[in-house]
Formats: sequence, C-alpha cells, structure tokens
Amino acid sequence: GAVPVVTALYGAGCRDFFVAHAEEGAEIRACAPDANIYVLDGFYEGCTELYIAHSLTPCLGSFAEIADYQALARSQEKPLPAMLNFNIRMNRLGLNKIETKELLDNHATMLAGIDVKGIMNHFSCADTPDHPITETQFKVFSDIARNFDAVFPALIKSLCNSSGLFRSPDYHFDLVRPGMALYGLNPTPEQDNPMHPVVRLEAPIIRTRIVYQGASIGYDATYKFKNDTLIATVAAGYADGLPWSLSNQGAFYWKGYRCLIRGRVSMDMSSIDLSAVPENDRPQVGDFIEVIGDHQNPAMIAKDAGALDYEILTSLGKRYDRRYLSA
Amino acid sequence: GAVPVVTALYGAGCRDFFVAHAEEGAEIRACAPDANIYVLDGFYEGCTELYIAHSLTPCLGSFAEIADYQALARSQEKPLPAMLNFNIRMNRLGLNKIETKELLDNHATMLAGIDVKGIMNHFSCADTPDHPITETQFKVFSDIARNFDAVFPALIKSLCNSSGLFRSPDYHFDLVRPGMALYGLNPTPEQDNPMHPVVRLEAPIIRTRIVYQGASIGYDATYKFKNDTLIATVAAGYADGLPWSLSNQGAFYWKGYRCLIRGRVSMDMSSIDLSAVPENDRPQVGDFIEVIGDHQNPAMIAKDAGALDYEILTSLGKRYDRRYLSA
Repeated sequence: GAVPVVTALYGAGCRDFFVAHAEEGAEIRACAPDANIYVLDGFYEGCTELYIAHSLTPCLGSFAEIADYQALARSQEKPLPAMLNFNIRMNRLGLNKIETKELLDNHATMLAGIDVKGIMNHFSCADTPDHPITETQFKVFSDIARNFDAVFPALIKSLCNSSGLFRSPDYHFDLVRPGMALYGLNPTPEQDNPMHPVVRLEAPIIRTRIVYQGASIGYDATYKFKNDTLIATVAAGYADGLPWSLSNQGAFYWKGYRCLIRGRVSMDMSSIDLSAVPENDRPQVGDFIEVIGDHQNPAMIAKDAGALDYEILTSLGKRYDRRYLSA
Repeated sequence: GAVPVVTALYGAGCRDFFVAHAEEGAEIRACAPDANIYVLDGFYEGCTELYIAHSLTPCLGSFAEIADYQALARSQEKPLPAMLNFNIRMNRLGLNKIETKELLDNHATMLAGIDVKGIMNHFSCADTPDHPITETQFKVFSDIARNFDAVFPALIKSLCNSSGLFRSPDYHFDLVRPGMALYGLNPTPEQDNPMHPVVRLEAPIIRTRIVYQGASIGYDATYKFKNDTLIATVAAGYADGLPWSLSNQGAFYWKGYRCLIRGRVSMDMSSIDLSAVPENDRPQVGDFIEVIGDHQNPAMIAKDAGALDYEILTSLGKRYDRRYLSA
C-alpha cells in the first residue's frame, strides 16, 4: 500500500520518506514529487539508474558504497545527496567505529562529490523501556553528531524509529522515522497503545455446517469435536498471510464473540467454531468475519501464531480487496 | 505466478485447472483459452459476472450455491456447467451425507438447468501413509460415484490432491489435482521426494562485518557472540515472506556451507554467520546467498520456522525479481 499511504502522508505535509529498496523509492516518487526519498539499504549494484531517474538519496553505510556513489557523482559531474548511516550495537548496516573515525579524518577526499545531507542511526531495542542499549545508541550517536557538526554545517540528524519516538524527546533530533506506529501497531508494548488502529481485515464465510461429536476437521484431522458444533468455513488461509501456526491456536471474531480456529489453517480457508455465539446472533454464509478489527489487533494474532505484529501486517495477502479510507 | 505456470502447463497439454477464487480463474483464462477452469470455493456472491465472462465452472458444495447457480442458468437461458463437491470427513466445503441423499432423490428438480460435469472430493490426510481417513474418503466417494453414475452418464470423478496421487492408482479416477507437487514439494514426506525441485531463491549480501566477542546483533539484541564473528547482512526479511520465527533458528547456504541466522530476522534484512565458510571461499557484498536451492528446500525452512512447506512458497514476497525458466 505504499502509493496510497505516501499520498496521504504527503497530503498531511510529510516531505521525507524512507524506503528499504530503490525500487520502492521509484514506485512512490510520483506521489511525493518534491520530497526527499531516502533508501535505507544504501547504494547497491544494478539500481544506479533508479537513483538518478527518481532523485533518490541513499543511506550510505560502507566504504564500498561511498566510493561507488562518489564514482556516480563524478560521472554525473555534480554533487549527489546522501545520508550517512552508522552502526551502533545493531550490527546490521552502517559504518563501524573505526570506519567512522577514518571517514572523519579523511572527509575531504572520501566524501568529495557527495552532498552529505545528514547522519542517521537506528534503535534496536527501544520497544523495551529503559533498555541500556537504547541509551548507549543515543549517546554514541550524539558524539558522532558533534564530530560531524564540526565539519559539515547544518546536517540533518535522525535516530528514532516508532518506539524511540515515544521513549524520550531527547531522541528526536531533526527527523524521526516512524514505521509500525503509522500502521497502528503499539510502539510501547508494555503499556496501552498511543496510536489509533488503522487496519481492519474481514473475510467472508463460504459455508456453515454442524460437525458431529467425535468427527475431526481439516488437514491431518488435528482437531476432534467433543460435541456437535456449528462450524463456519472462512475464505482466508495461509496463502492470504494468515500464519499456518494459527492452526488450533487463533480465533476470528463475530460481533465481539471469539470464534476459535479449529483444525489446520488451509491454503485458502480456515474453519472457526461458532459455539460462543448465541443462536440468534449467528452469522450466515456471505457475512464477513473480523480477522483484524475492534476485538483483535495484529499483536493478538501474532501472539497466537508465534509471529511478530509487524509481520502480520507485512504478510497481508494480495488477494484481499483493499480499500483506503480518508481520515 | 499463476500466469506463467498455467501457460507452461497448458503448453504441456493440461486442459483442466482448479483455482480457489473466481478472480484467479479470470486471471488465467487468457493463458488457457479452451480449458476447463474450476473454482474450488464454489459459487459466491459478487462474482457472477466473472463466471459468465470467463466461462468458469464452480465446484458447488451447498444447496444455497446450487439454487443460486440454477437461478443464474435460468437467467442465461442455457444450462451452465458445474462440479459437485462432497464433504467426506474434511468438514470444510461440500455437501454432507444427508444433503447428498436429498440431492440424489430430487436431482431432476434440484439440478435442473445445471450441466453436471462431474463430482469431486478432497483428501485431508493423504500425506500420512495408510491414514485410515484416506481409505474411508476413497470408499465413501466411490459409493457416491456409483449412485451418481446411475443417474448422470459420463461424469468426471476427481479425488486426488498431490499426496493422494502417490498413494494408490485406485484413487486416481478421471482427473487428479496436484498442487504442491507441481511446485516441487514432497507429497510423500515419509520418503524421498519423487518430484524435482523447481523453486530457487537467492538474496544479495549488502554488507559484511566482524562482530566482536560479547556484542549482540539485531532487534532486541537476542544473540550474543562468543567469538569475533564474520557476519553478512542479507537483503531479505519477513516482509519478503521469510518467517520472523527463523530468528536464531534458520540458516542460508553459501557454496553448501550452512550459515546460521543470528539474531532477529528484520523486516527487510537477515544477518547470517559466515564462520562455517573457509576463509578463501567467503562471499562478498553483492554475492547472492542460497535461501532455497540445492542445499535447502522449503520443508527445511518450514521445520526451522514452525511453518508449513507450502506456506514458505505461498509467502514468497512480491519484491523478489521472479524469473521463470523453460524446462
């Protein structure tokens, strides 16, 4: 949903977007014509044309990337914009301590031709309150920022993901990068969600039936009924991004009643138990059941599935009919 | 990948395709112009136009569907084709025992206007050898087939999924419906895979670094290094369909060496340990690492992730550059 989401954020005044890959930057350029679009993965082979054609700004995190990007700037005969990304305790992307010192000592040559827009780092543990790594990342990043300020004037500094944003105003610097919070997930999982939910998912019932006492259901007959039970077959399965690990674990909701998933989640379907629903409130074939909504958020599904709440949203299948509502 | 796969199967002579939803049938019609395209979900609201426009054949599994489809045939003033789907022990879709008897007794009225092409059922436990439910499903389906043969001449009978197909030639009847086996998964998991692998997945390394003894890696710092360790950051994460539950569990392969995933799988990246790779064989930034291939099949990933092998394939993310090879 990058295009409608970026369009809405752009309409709300956002002029800085971070994407993982250059292809994603290219996809959203038309919805955010004069915005800064930063590519978190950095500058990598095969995407040079996308960077130029769509004016993307890489977040450079290694000497090799910096050198390659410098070469591109030379070939374009103009300075090209970049963020510099530092590695502090995350050990995923970014320049390490020794590289950072070397870059500072030799910035005149190593960064020649690169229009350094800013510096960045990423919190790894900010979803846990008072995690010691969070404070370390803040302090080390602050030191790097001071060192770079001595050399480059007016650098943008960016440190916060969704969780960091809610931990301390000290962490905000010039530019924050909320991700999951924009999609209504809870950046402070130890307390109530400060964000409104923004994603709803409903799936239709395509068959109901009584399954009799002693019978089983679904692949490998993993659930056996202790009583005659009203079951609904719902047209959403793991090919739609509902984890197979929800088999005999998760639930969907009808009018607030928790309807347990019975048996294995199939590729295109799931079976739910309507026992909890009073007889005069029961859904019919064609009715849509709540998968994500007022009674079940992605974190609850993730807990049942042994998954991550972010993952529940990034896995939402492409067969769903998506509707974007205005605020 | 429905379009390239159907095109290849059609080229190989296949003239019968089963899809879950009518939208999927519409998508593949152009690649299989004169084929029978059956919709497993049955006949449901809102898709009437797709059935007519793309000549789709529903697998009818309830009286309501049969009546609705009959009404459509009347409005079209011609008989419309259908399969009849029966529920035997699976309790997901299909007509139950009482409904089946009622339908047989009243076929002249209940099926008037419907051109019954065939009957079908689906194995639920055929991936387990000699599962008693498999034999029951076969026997009950055979009885239903005999009863329908007495009324409708030349009905197509279809029972087998991938696993059933390999269990007994008796189960084959007129039409089989392999799914996972076509994609190289093992339909007989208790023994060697009779199918060739058909899916490969590789992801690029975007950064390597030494992570020092005592340091941690990734979100929530869940893995702590006992030794200085060469780590590669790979540009594939749970937003690409690699389950987050592979965190500290799974591995990717380089030249056959198992490279363990360290720390949490991120949205767009994973970190792997290159310790097992001899120094002179190590990959560089830009090299592609095997996720699925000669050394790791989807079942191995599924086992590490607590997932299903089918699910690993249906979850493959849309950001991958897909290339379809000819046989």
